[in-house]
Amino acid sequence: MDKSRKPYQLVSLEWKKEPTVFKVNNAEIGGDNFNLIAGPCAVENEEQIHTIASYLSKKGIKILRGGAYKPRTSPYSFQGLKEEGLIYLKNAAIANQMSVITEVMDTNLVDKVYEYTDIFQVGTRNMQNFQLLKALSKTNKPIMLKRGWSSTIEEWLLAAEYLLLGGNPNVILCERGIRTFETATRNTLDLNAVALAKTLSHLPVMVDPSQGTGLRELVEPMSLAAVAAGADGLMIEIHNQPTEALSDGRQSLYFDQLDVLMSKVEILCNTIGKQVDYRKKENEKIFEK
Amino acid sequence: MDKSRKPYQLVSLEWKKEPTVFKVNNAEIGGDNFNLIAGPCAVENEEQIHTIASYLSKKGIKILRGGAYKPRTSPYSFQGLKEEGLIYLKNAAIANQMSVITEVMDTNLVDKVYEYTDIFQVGTRNMQNFQLLKALSKTNKPIMLKRGWSSTIEEWLLAAEYLLLGGNPNVILCERGIRTFETATRNTLDLNAVALAKTLSHLPVMVDPSQGTGLRELVEPMSLAAVAAGADGLMIEIHNQPTEALSDGRQSLYFDQLDVLMSKVEILCNTIGKQVDYRKKENEKIFEK
Amino acid sequence: MDKSRKPYQLVSLEWKKEPTVFKVNNAEIGGDNFNLIAGPCAVENEEQIHTIASYLSKKGIKILRGGAYKPRTSPYSFQGLKEEGLIYLKNAAIANQMSVITEVMDTNLVDKVYEYTDIFQVGTRNMQNFQLLKALSKTNKPIMLKRGWSSTIEEWLLAAEYLLLGGNPNVILCERGIRTFETATRNTLDLNAVALAKTLSHLPVMVDPSQGTGLRELVEPMSLAAVAAGADGLMIEIHNQPTEALSDGRQSLYFDQLDVLMSKVEILCNTIGKQVDYRKKENEKIFEK
Amino acid sequence: MDKSRKPYQLVSLEWKKEPTVFKVNNAEIGGDNFNLIAGPCAVENEEQIHTIASYLSKKGIKILRGGAYKPRTSPYSFQGLKEEGLIYLKNAAIANQMSVITEVMDTNLVDKVYEYTDIFQVGTRNMQNFQLLKALSKTNKPIMLKRGWSSTIEEWLLAAEYLLLGGNPNVILCERGIRTFETATRNTLDLNAVALAKTLSHLPVMVDPSQGTGLRELVEPMSLAAVAAGADGLMIEIHNQPTEALSDGRQSLYFDQLDVLMSKVEILCNTIGKQVDYRKKENEKIFEK
Repeated sequence: MDKSRKPYQLVSLEWKKEPTVFKVNNAEIGGDNFNLIAGPCAVENEEQIHTIASYLSKKGIKILRGGAYKPRTSPYSFQGLKEEGLIYLKNAAIANQMSVITEVMDTNLVDKVYEYTDIFQVGTRNMQNFQLLKALSKTNKPIMLKRGWSSTIEEWLLAAEYLLLGGNPNVILCERGIRTFETATRNTLDLNAVALAKTLSHLPVMVDPSQGTGLRELVEPMSLAAVAAGADGLMIEIHNQPTEALSDGRQSLYFDQLDVLMSKVEILCNTIGKQVDYRKKENEKIFEK
Repeated sequence: MDKSRKPYQLVSLEWKKEPTVFKVNNAEIGGDNFNLIAGPCAVENEEQIHTIASYLSKKGIKILRGGAYKPRTSPYSFQGLKEEGLIYLKNAAIANQMSVITEVMDTNLVDKVYEYTDIFQVGTRNMQNFQLLKALSKTNKPIMLKRGWSSTIEEWLLAAEYLLLGGNPNVILCERGIRTFETATRNTLDLNAVALAKTLSHLPVMVDPSQGTGLRELVEPMSLAAVAAGADGLMIEIHNQPTEALSDGRQSLYFDQLDVLMSKVEILCNTIGKQVDYRKKENEKIFEK
Repeated sequence: MDKSRKPYQLVSLEWKKEPTVFKVNNAEIGGDNFNLIAGPCAVENEEQIHTIASYLSKKGIKILRGGAYKPRTSPYSFQGLKEEGLIYLKNAAIANQMSVITEVMDTNLVDKVYEYTDIFQVGTRNMQNFQLLKALSKTNKPIMLKRGWSSTIEEWLLAAEYLLLGGNPNVILCERGIRTFETATRNTLDLNAVALAKTLSHLPVMVDPSQGTGLRELVEPMSLAAVAAGADGLMIEIHNQPTEALSDGRQSLYFDQLDVLMSKVEILCNTIGKQVDYRKKENEKIFEK
Repeated sequence: MDKSRKPYQLVSLEWKKEPTVFKVNNAEIGGDNFNLIAGPCAVENEEQIHTIASYLSKKGIKILRGGAYKPRTSPYSFQGLKEEGLIYLKNAAIANQMSVITEVMDTNLVDKVYEYTDIFQVGTRNMQNFQLLKALSKTNKPIMLKRGWSSTIEEWLLAAEYLLLGGNPNVILCERGIRTFETATRNTLDLNAVALAKTLSHLPVMVDPSQGTGLRELVEPMSLAAVAAGADGLMIEIHNQPTEALSDGRQSLYFDQLDVLMSKVEILCNTIGKQVDYRKKENEKIFEK
């Protein structure tokens, strides 16, 4: 990337020197805030999403993730509950005073997803679905733009430029791992990209360590690494019964693992001057064994 | 890929042992046929596409490519002439008794593109746009499915499975290069994938050496390599004034370069028992210097 | 690669416009010659290498490959017969009037390997072993420089520049596949690199489709693709009992597969004006089924 | 990686449950220790290395890095001062009561480098130089094994297995970035690999954020991320005049940048229970702006 001649403008720190900060109901995103978004990969049934949302809201989590329309490599895999899933997700969020983030896969679904979600998620496969970006840029709801798994940082910022140019300033960049030759992890989480994006853009940058590693046991260390690299938030997959999950069970945390992760993230955020958006009463010395 | 337990079915050679062959107007695709599709990256104006189509049809080329809706990395790049481009493209094809292939970027555009095209092209960024695949699977026009630039061969075949499962059997696979660490070429053309796809599937497999190399001077040798690897056709970018092209000029052939390429491809096809679908009167010993 | 300011000189076509041609005993390499080098991945015992060499020499193959010092990912894998392997290999070659090519892994082994080999092979892991390159550049035997599996074309040419700068002009470049995200094939054979190297350098460029695919059934189509892309030769793994091979059995040809491959390569070479260096009496229409 | 059937043994946590801890003069490596190794990419002259060593030792840094034999892509680039460089490096270290780490590029250089170094560094290009690994395994000095830029985690651990199997237990793994499609950063620092290696092996794992990013401004955030991901140390490039450096200037820190980095690393280490091996009198709240 020739840094002297940037191909984007609206997303750049030179264009706007203050970090982009915006509210989603009771959550504030960007600036000194650090958000933790959590939920299952897919909404599987009403009970599952209510169980998870209830747990998360008790922990202070304010934004609930969950897929209703799922992009799946195979046509024979579970494709999501679709509108039924959106309804369950929304109801679970309302019942627990949470906001919703869910993926919109296609221009035809923008209106429907709009009814139920608080934040649109653009998935990794759609980072360069330019018709979808243009449609979303005309809505008034925030957008999380996941990095394409083989997209450069410059392409990612240019995709965000489509959103800002279309009129929607409330964009979250989300690094979720890139595709490399390594096979021990599902993706290679590129924290360089987080640190670099923070020097190039005023937009908040979050990290998805669940997709970024594919391995439950790496979610905690890579969450902490993301905090230290300068991320503004995390998006975590969690499940009440990971081994029974219809998708991505191998990378979903157990409830008690999230609890530990939240404590450590909070301590780290305190250390580096970020404000976590979830309440934790006790601030135990959890790093000490 | 564990070859003993294939995750796809309808696209596999085990499911259907005979190669898939179908007609697009006066062109026959698949089996022993070898097709050469050519045209500019983008339809730029009426005169340009007519000039190119007229030249190509005189050479015997039966299928005209040209982009009307262009997926562009930057919102500031030329985005295509849209419906106006489709009209120019269709008129140029009709005037020269050619068929049209053009990219459809979004479910919302399927009906409009259907009016003008003979073959739908699914671009590399949309190989896993599953809503689009599902919509196209319900149409009765053939589909060229370009491989995602970071998609595995298995993911490519599974994307094709979406199309066949939805009811459309007339699918062309098209290898167009993958993204690697190499920067001397725009993409790394993966002819392994062509040879392997031919052992796994009954679908015709074409190659786009223009995208696959990004360099005009490599289009000829890689076209010949594609023929030798077992490809069923080529998709070539050509322009009447490559240095003035609004996009992809660096990889577009000059008219006289296509002429040489066609002669060599024909000789090679004759050698290995493929039938080129364009007429060439003379069969000069063009390989000899 | 900025083509206007090349970082190498001696290997470039601008420096020396005529192709590099040299003899290795009865074989001539470079220019219009097309060489087929064959043999097992590793010399396993005396009988094996004699059986294979005897078969190959009857087919007209002039250069015998075989590993004596094997670079193995695991210390628990078969590491080669070492000097004993060199002796068996040399004797098998002499008995069949063939030349030897074998890998030299380390500066300490240069003198010993020199005694037995006719061509030094620098393996993919050693392409940037600069001390080894410098040592080999001072010998008077030709060197095959395999491309590093994650080396760019420019880095490959610069490694060759070390050899020419040190005083050894007889260098063969060999593309053997690069490491990418694809897992269905062992490597991604990059024929773009072959075509590009031929436009940049006067050195002969060969291809190893055995390493480049990892799958026996892809060796033939990718050999033909290599010929068509402009390669000056092939290096093929073959074994008298592939299923019993101590290494790389999955990618080793059976004897009768090599026979078919040689016929097809010869026909293709005839078509494009290359001279194969092996005799074939009959030139049957083997492409026709 | 099939975790149920590991191809390595001696390096695995199952084989040895306690972390490997060893001393290098006054520095202790592994376990709860966190080491900071620093110095220039290359020893350029006597004054340069003394200036840098003097600065570093005042800061409490105990291990001095510096290249004397430099592996360079081009034969026309500065190749290092060779033995002269080793002498300057050793003298600078002795004068400042520091230990030396420097790269050994070849088996022929093992004895010479042994005289001057306290820790052997195996560079990324030599991770699979198995003859070199075998030679080093027979020495009694610790070895830092940098990950090959395109080597999997499993291959990295297997390379370390060569060292332990040969008899040298004092091995440091060092992640230094892998080669991907991204071009905005020189390499993609793979902290997943650090977190995963810590779950698989008892060996200390360090990180080189200078090579891993190629950009001075990313060295601090990625150093902190490495700490949080569980690394046991950092290896940092620093130069008294980065803009004049003969190699890698773009990624070398200025003196005052290292000062800030050390403070932040110390605070982070305190937070997570690691002991930095350098003294810092003041522990100012440097994260607060």
